[in-house]
Amino acid sequence: MITLLTDFGLTDHFVGVMKGVITSIAPDTQIIDITHDVPPFSIAQGAFLLDQAWRYFPKGTIHLAIVDPGVGSTRRPLLIRSRGHYFIGPDNGIFTHLESAKIRHLDQPKYWLPDPSNTFHGRDIFSPVAAHLANGVKPASFGSLITDPVLLTIPPCSILHIDRFGNLITNLSPSQFPPQSFTLTANKHRIKNHAATYALCPEGELCIIPGSSGYYEISIASDSAARRTGLIPGSVLKLDVSS
Amino acid sequence: MITLLTDFGLTDHFVGVMKGVITSIAPDTQIIDITHDVPPFSIAQGAFLLDQAWRYFPKGTIHLAIVDPGVGSTRRPLLIRSRGHYFIGPDNGIFTHLESAKIRHLDQPKYWLPDPSNTFHGRDIFSPVAAHLANGVKPASFGSLITDPVLLTIPPCSILHIDRFGNLITNLSPSQFPPQSFTLTANKHRIKNHAATYALCPEGELCIIPGSSGYYEISIASDSAARRTGLIPGSVLKLDVSS
Amino acid sequence: MITLLTDFGLTDHFVGVMKGVITSIAPDTQIIDITHDVPPFSIAQGAFLLDQAWRYFPKGTIHLAIVDPGVGSTRRPLLIRSRGHYFIGPDNGIFTHLESAKIRHLDQPKYWLPDPSNTFHGRDIFSPVAAHLANGVKPASFGSLITDPVLLTIPPCSILHIDRFGNLITNLSPSQFPPQSFTLTANKHRIKNHAATYALCPEGELCIIPGSSGYYEISIASDSAARRTGLIPGSVLKLDVSS
Repeated sequence: MITLLTDFGLTDHFVGVMKGVITSIAPDTQIIDITHDVPPFSIAQGAFLLDQAWRYFPKGTIHLAIVDPGVGSTRRPLLIRSRGHYFIGPDNGIFTHLESAKIRHLDQPKYWLPDPSNTFHGRDIFSPVAAHLANGVKPASFGSLITDPVLLTIPPCSILHIDRFGNLITNLSPSQFPPQSFTLTANKHRIKNHAATYALCPEGELCIIPGSSGYYEISIASDSAARRTGLIPGSVLKLDVSS
Repeated sequence: MITLLTDFGLTDHFVGVMKGVITSIAPDTQIIDITHDVPPFSIAQGAFLLDQAWRYFPKGTIHLAIVDPGVGSTRRPLLIRSRGHYFIGPDNGIFTHLESAKIRHLDQPKYWLPDPSNTFHGRDIFSPVAAHLANGVKPASFGSLITDPVLLTIPPCSILHIDRFGNLITNLSPSQFPPQSFTLTANKHRIKNHAATYALCPEGELCIIPGSSGYYEISIASDSAARRTGLIPGSVLKLDVSS
Repeated sequence: MITLLTDFGLTDHFVGVMKGVITSIAPDTQIIDITHDVPPFSIAQGAFLLDQAWRYFPKGTIHLAIVDPGVGSTRRPLLIRSRGHYFIGPDNGIFTHLESAKIRHLDQPKYWLPDPSNTFHGRDIFSPVAAHLANGVKPASFGSLITDPVLLTIPPCSILHIDRFGNLITNLSPSQFPPQSFTLTANKHRIKNHAATYALCPEGELCIIPGSSGYYEISIASDSAARRTGLIPGSVLKLDVSS
């Protein structure tokens, strides 16, 4: 099984073409989309979404993750093995959240399409490598081991992601800070309400909710906390822990 | 086969994660998206879209339908059998249009993911139940029968849905009212033209067309009737039947 | 394998319904989306995207391509065989870029759904024909040969498509004009920079890049060339070849 996560959107032919390349090489592979609407060039949000998704797939799944503003430059294409899953994509921080991984630099063009373009490695390098891996080619065949991948720096107490409903996902987790034990200040909004579910949040109020991502979210029932607060991914929050 | 209809959008990891959960439990299941762009929290539009889609799938298909503003509250999770198909989702009216159904309250946590969250039952309850059902677990294993599902009230002569092209889908059907036998008044627009196809509607005019949904649609050739009239789902129309 | 390319969007039930029809007739068919976000009624962009995508799929693939403002009028439904692939859709120019093709008019209703609507041939005609073809029904069974398909006229030196990143894809190719051998003028913008990759384009400058489509693209690193220039698909460019 191969999953796809990109910032390519669904308005172009890019994603369909990648699936064509994969099924031409590995016809029986199941392909599942995680998302193709990572905000363009947003490596940090791609890294967050990948980290949320991969663990729900069976062991052995191959995850293609392509947010790649440096395509065609000297940034390296990678194949990573981590916790029984495979990850393929550019070396720019998108794999920051993976643990204790074995990392290879994809330096063997025999597994790429011939004459790869400078602008669409998703089609010309990453998809064919994923398909050959699905066909049983050994990881070592694709390239040599490296130990210095690019890693992102995530500010402490910040917004990782805004979801479709406008919920603001932080990088604070209930295991670090129990519910009711802290407040957050975001722009001019002081957020003191803690609620267990969206439905328990008082109408029209910002609440801190233990989200399905494993992190606290800032939410409003049936409205957008992002619009209300003006916060964006990367925004830093002020944390006050109750004494 | 399992179909998915949600208001989760495609910009997040939610839909990909559900597919991961399903394929982890039932690896050979075919998963087909109906739509994930139901307007957030719009149960009525979700109910309309589900009703349009399910009947075109083979008998035995399992339809997951999740528009769920009450997730984490006391609203019940349901499994419904109707006309040879299965339906799984929240008890909030999204299954209003199904006929004479056998309805179960999903009250058996052994078929859920462990420690379900309060905010993402699509991942933690509905997807694993669908996957176990696809694997052949008997419906009775998932919960006890109920007879009092939540049902929506649809106003007579109203707009059910606006499609991508701006066509306004009404709840009037040709079997109730033959073509040419009535006019509609919407805001200040009196709509008298009846046409058999979009292409036969006079350029720039609003027309009443027997749509592919089985209902009349208000349309303009190559333009948006929604933008022209300002109508939205739920808007009520005035019906005048010719004498 | 069947691919889908439409302007139906993903907010409605249309695409899911087509997949239901296909899997009801041909249950084991793999269905892959190329895109459903062709701008509504934009036949030229649909033709471009189809031409970019089909060649990456295995021989024998069936490509459904439906951008169909004339649905329900006298425009013919077609089945085309070209270079080992099959193409199904309306006769309005969407197949303009296919070479030396064998073209059939779908005039055999026995392979359609009963009582086809006037507004949704994707469901009622094109999908069932694709599914029966996938099941092995011979092309000649679906209709008689024709030789006069509708073809689009593409202006020389114009914009074919704007991609998700705002890159402007032209119809000029490196095989006609080598890199560095020409400049383009678009509205008031004279574009002289040639770059091999997005990353090599000077920050904030418009560049001419040999794109992955086989055509030159006008691009800005990490920004939208479409927004900067105001150009749209169909816009004509002024070409100056260096002497």
